[in-house]
Amino acid sequence: MEQERKKFTARTDLAIEAREMAKEKSRREEEPDGVEVETIAREQYDLTRVRIRNEAGSRTMGKPVGSYITIESQSLKENDIFSHEAIIKGLAEELRELAGLKEGDTVLIAGLGNWNITPDALGPKVVSKVLVTRHLEGTLPEEILRTVRPVAAVSPGVMGITGIETGEIVKGIVEKMQPSLLIAVDALAARRTGRINAAIQLSDTGLAPGAGVGNKRKLLSRETLGIPVIAIGVPTVVDAATLVNDTMDRMLEEMTNHAEKNTVFYEMLRSMEGEEKYELIRELLDPYAENMFVTPKEVDAVIDRLSGVIASAVNLAVHPGLTMEEIQQFQA
Amino acid sequence: MEQERKKFTARTDLAIEAREMAKEKSRREEEPDGVEVETIAREQYDLTRVRIRNEAGSRTMGKPVGSYITIESQSLKENDIFSHEAIIKGLAEELRELAGLKEGDTVLIAGLGNWNITPDALGPKVVSKVLVTRHLEGTLPEEILRTVRPVAAVSPGVMGITGIETGEIVKGIVEKMQPSLLIAVDALAARRTGRINAAIQLSDTGLAPGAGVGNKRKLLSRETLGIPVIAIGVPTVVDAATLVNDTMDRMLEEMTNHAEKNTVFYEMLRSMEGEEKYELIRELLDPYAENMFVTPKEVDAVIDRLSGVIASAVNLAVHPGLTMEEIQQFQA
Amino acid sequence: MEQERKKFTARTDLAIEAREMAKEKSRREEEPDGVEVETIAREQYDLTRVRIRNEAGSRTMGKPVGSYITIESQSLKENDIFSHEAIIKGLAEELRELAGLKEGDTVLIAGLGNWNITPDALGPKVVSKVLVTRHLEGTLPEEILRTVRPVAAVSPGVMGITGIETGEIVKGIVEKMQPSLLIAVDALAARRTGRINAAIQLSDTGLAPGAGVGNKRKLLSRETLGIPVIAIGVPTVVDAATLVNDTMDRMLEEMTNHAEKNTVFYEMLRSMEGEEKYELIRELLDPYAENMFVTPKEVDAVIDRLSGVIASAVNLAVHPGLTMEEIQQFQA
Amino acid sequence: MEQERKKFTARTDLAIEAREMAKEKSRREEEPDGVEVETIAREQYDLTRVRIRNEAGSRTMGKPVGSYITIESQSLKENDIFSHEAIIKGLAEELRELAGLKEGDTVLIAGLGNWNITPDALGPKVVSKVLVTRHLEGTLPEEILRTVRPVAAVSPGVMGITGIETGEIVKGIVEKMQPSLLIAVDALAARRTGRINAAIQLSDTGLAPGAGVGNKRKLLSRETLGIPVIAIGVPTVVDAATLVNDTMDRMLEEMTNHAEKNTVFYEMLRSMEGEEKYELIRELLDPYAENMFVTPKEVDAVIDRLSGVIASAVNLAVHPGLTMEEIQQFQA
Repeated sequence: MEQERKKFTARTDLAIEAREMAKEKSRREEEPDGVEVETIAREQYDLTRVRIRNEAGSRTMGKPVGSYITIESQSLKENDIFSHEAIIKGLAEELRELAGLKEGDTVLIAGLGNWNITPDALGPKVVSKVLVTRHLEGTLPEEILRTVRPVAAVSPGVMGITGIETGEIVKGIVEKMQPSLLIAVDALAARRTGRINAAIQLSDTGLAPGAGVGNKRKLLSRETLGIPVIAIGVPTVVDAATLVNDTMDRMLEEMTNHAEKNTVFYEMLRSMEGEEKYELIRELLDPYAENMFVTPKEVDAVIDRLSGVIASAVNLAVHPGLTMEEIQQFQA
Repeated sequence: MEQERKKFTARTDLAIEAREMAKEKSRREEEPDGVEVETIAREQYDLTRVRIRNEAGSRTMGKPVGSYITIESQSLKENDIFSHEAIIKGLAEELRELAGLKEGDTVLIAGLGNWNITPDALGPKVVSKVLVTRHLEGTLPEEILRTVRPVAAVSPGVMGITGIETGEIVKGIVEKMQPSLLIAVDALAARRTGRINAAIQLSDTGLAPGAGVGNKRKLLSRETLGIPVIAIGVPTVVDAATLVNDTMDRMLEEMTNHAEKNTVFYEMLRSMEGEEKYELIRELLDPYAENMFVTPKEVDAVIDRLSGVIASAVNLAVHPGLTMEEIQQFQA
Repeated sequence: MEQERKKFTARTDLAIEAREMAKEKSRREEEPDGVEVETIAREQYDLTRVRIRNEAGSRTMGKPVGSYITIESQSLKENDIFSHEAIIKGLAEELRELAGLKEGDTVLIAGLGNWNITPDALGPKVVSKVLVTRHLEGTLPEEILRTVRPVAAVSPGVMGITGIETGEIVKGIVEKMQPSLLIAVDALAARRTGRINAAIQLSDTGLAPGAGVGNKRKLLSRETLGIPVIAIGVPTVVDAATLVNDTMDRMLEEMTNHAEKNTVFYEMLRSMEGEEKYELIRELLDPYAENMFVTPKEVDAVIDRLSGVIASAVNLAVHPGLTMEEIQQFQA
Repeated sequence: MEQERKKFTARTDLAIEAREMAKEKSRREEEPDGVEVETIAREQYDLTRVRIRNEAGSRTMGKPVGSYITIESQSLKENDIFSHEAIIKGLAEELRELAGLKEGDTVLIAGLGNWNITPDALGPKVVSKVLVTRHLEGTLPEEILRTVRPVAAVSPGVMGITGIETGEIVKGIVEKMQPSLLIAVDALAARRTGRINAAIQLSDTGLAPGAGVGNKRKLLSRETLGIPVIAIGVPTVVDAATLVNDTMDRMLEEMTNHAEKNTVFYEMLRSMEGEEKYELIRELLDPYAENMFVTPKEVDAVIDRLSGVIASAVNLAVHPGLTMEEIQQFQA
């Protein structure tokens, strides 16, 4: 999530929001070309699978070809262990399928983001809670080792802290350790404040550390690392300009219901492309607001719980012989 | 800073912003009746003394009669020890004058706010950095004790954490300890993002824990405690609705420079009283944004530095025989 | 647990260790006069009830007349949620009986100790995890309020931090809030390293903050506060001299099994009273070791778990209508 | 400092203690063969340079051939900024000489140790305080860039956290980044409690993460990494057995001054080789004491200050154009 922001848009890392924006723009009800969407409402959460099939879909969505699975639930923000248990199981199932691990495969988990900035600390917090086992081989009895897979986990930090591209650090470690799969966990930026800390996205398309806020950093992907990469992310902030933009859109809509719709002012606003308007807002925004973000007050506690949910799901998905109960022990 | 927000306005705890708003509303250049303002530009900071002289001034400003001294500097947000040294000295001087301590007087410092929410943790952080000496009497040599005043310090927490009104806890401790002066440190809410973490306000009018965000909690004041109370505060957040409101104001201004000013839409917006517009925005704001605040990314580091500046100024002001150099030792 | 140590002995806060020492000293198998002991071995833990019946017992044990209940289990140090569940239930049951709360009674929980020193932070950590409800009256529906009791909780700090006697702060708050019962949680000092973080002691005799290490501070008790006081403690450290003393005892025993028992050296050591020997060790101890304590490496994680166990037991004991499952939600 | 302990001895990571032990063992006043020692008493600290010249010296000392420079001062434990300033300058000078950096050379700083265990967190804490600049090239004006050297910094964690040998992670990063020099900072084990947090050792012989407590892990050295390695360490713990051993030695000495020296018991103890006795103590030690360490109460604050001293010295030594004043800004 780290770092400066891009020149324009890219206000979302979520495929489900990219799809919303594409549909808003086209003003059509159908899905964009080359994009398939499946939605499942479960008791404790909503599951959406977005598949970008081809280059056309990728262009429209502004995201690479591949699968994006999102679990949404407002309960993720709350201290609701029953709902979380259901989400952990659902997430583990999707992750297991996406990963397709075979016996003997090893996994490296990378927690991206800056541990000093609470809403960016999701990745490092997940890493601190996953069950690391790779170093135990040879020290544990066979029957226990059979229930766990060799898993390693690192939090490489962000370039502002280390002076090194995060992608380079991860690549260096991957080359030494040679894992079969990289799972990278990162905080994301969303467009809707309602989605902050209320959605978890899985994808198999890799990720660029800091991409959500616009930097085209070294991509962590099968192309650059030579192994499959699964990204897990949670939107934890909305940038200030996005908040203003979305509120203003609602205001315009609200006010113009009562007012005449053809004033010059109204038309001016309506005629601006979304990006144009967003840019105008960014320019007009109090200059000090530029480095500010919008986040809930209880962000520390929420990130702590969310990281527990993701760590439990990862533990359940990668270790073949562990039960939900055993998994939860590691989160206590 | 804690807790839910008031029904309307009160978007600022700063007397200098209350004054700005009063002048905006009256559209006059003169100061409001019953309000005196003195501004001094120093090399490293600006100093503003606002005195509310009477009930008329108090009504216009929405603040009790008394003195409000504000030190403003963007350097407060930065790691600029030279500028901070100047600010510490200036702040200590103002504090010393406001306090008027006599030999033998004892001081209780209360750090208000919630230590679990970074931008609300200012008070507790200051308390963790002030030089506490009250328990040393009898254990230190006379010549050292002569350089320090008996000082105690507590962080009473917030009602959501303790279940007890913060004012009650402070009152219970004041009754047992019987200090000559209470210095209460708290995080404040500002209206302008540019003032976040860039201003320190001193006042002799007491304070209501959580007042900035609208709760009329038990006031900590000479009336309720029987001893003088000096409040020290720093604006650390802007609420989301205020940010949208202010940005929209600028946008309207900007756009209407180019557009015809007499459209119905424009007139509608202009004709709304500030509070009406603010309320409309709050209603239109994404409902999830309600509990959100706008804060800079590096908030942890900034609050840490600000609390050091305030603690050093307090140490310098209350202990008669300590030098700046000795004071800084306690912040290392 | 805080602060300097007493002139001699008092190397334990645990009634079960005071009893061991009394028996060692008397070299008799019977319990000391005026002391009754009941031991129950349960599947997940051992429960010992020590009752000091009269002044004679109090003198021998060096502890006030009253009940001391200890739950011991090595699993307390581990991440063993199943064993912890059993301990939480057992502890809650003992606590409920000792407390004898009636409908409408209110409870204040005080977490004693220094939050900056990990092994002394037990009390504050428990406070951060208990369910505080006293401020919710009037804001929650009747049927929910009926399941919870009005509970408040504070962490008053230690005198080295606040400059105020901890007992004074607690007394000030008790006078304002007027609770029916005070539950005070504190870290204790033990004599055996094997008991560190492996025992929880309940007692109805009040406690002196910092008493474990020898300061006769203001007692928190029914006499001083006017309300019943229940103390909950966990031994979290052994002081360096105690460790040397106990190891040396074993060494002597071991060596003298093989050596002649009547050498002057052996006799000299054997003839010294326990306290004399302990004092000699303290004098000979590297002077820098005086402020040192012996603690396990993983102390942060262990204190975190122990505080969760105690907070859950307190929640279960004081709130009449909460289930174990609901209780655990608050620890997540 | 991490992990299990070796089969025997290796109770010290400090060359000055290895030398003491070698002299004790030989009962000679001269330095061991192949070892040169130079001692300088400065106003604020003592400086000792130990040079192990050849294989004979290396065998006697149990340390690789090379230079070991130790700065000792009890003030390191205290909040004494004047003394710290002198130590920072002295340390920077020694480090600059040992490093021999040329223009354009780049530096990687690795903070070894476990950030979750306070006395082992020294390395990560130093890394969090050094001035990282490598990523700024191209973004800062030429004249500023000329005053700073490209520096990167990482905290690789410990194997128990990551599942990967620390040496492998560092090697992976070195291969990607190709720095000219590695500076590795780690917590050490000492033999004397008086040296805990009161000495800083520099050496050019590389280091083995966790070596202080006995694991022969992958060495970080010029041989394994292909670049020079400077190790900076501070002894932060003494293990429990060492404490007992040293106290018992004193006790024996003390007692036998008064008693007859030729009892069988005394002879038995005296006749045991140091290592034999140490092993006996370890066996007799309360089994729970095995994973325990001896550390001062205020360890958090001390490690915080020590890491600031080391970070300032590193900043001063590696960045050619920064002044002491500018350096201190980064520690605020």
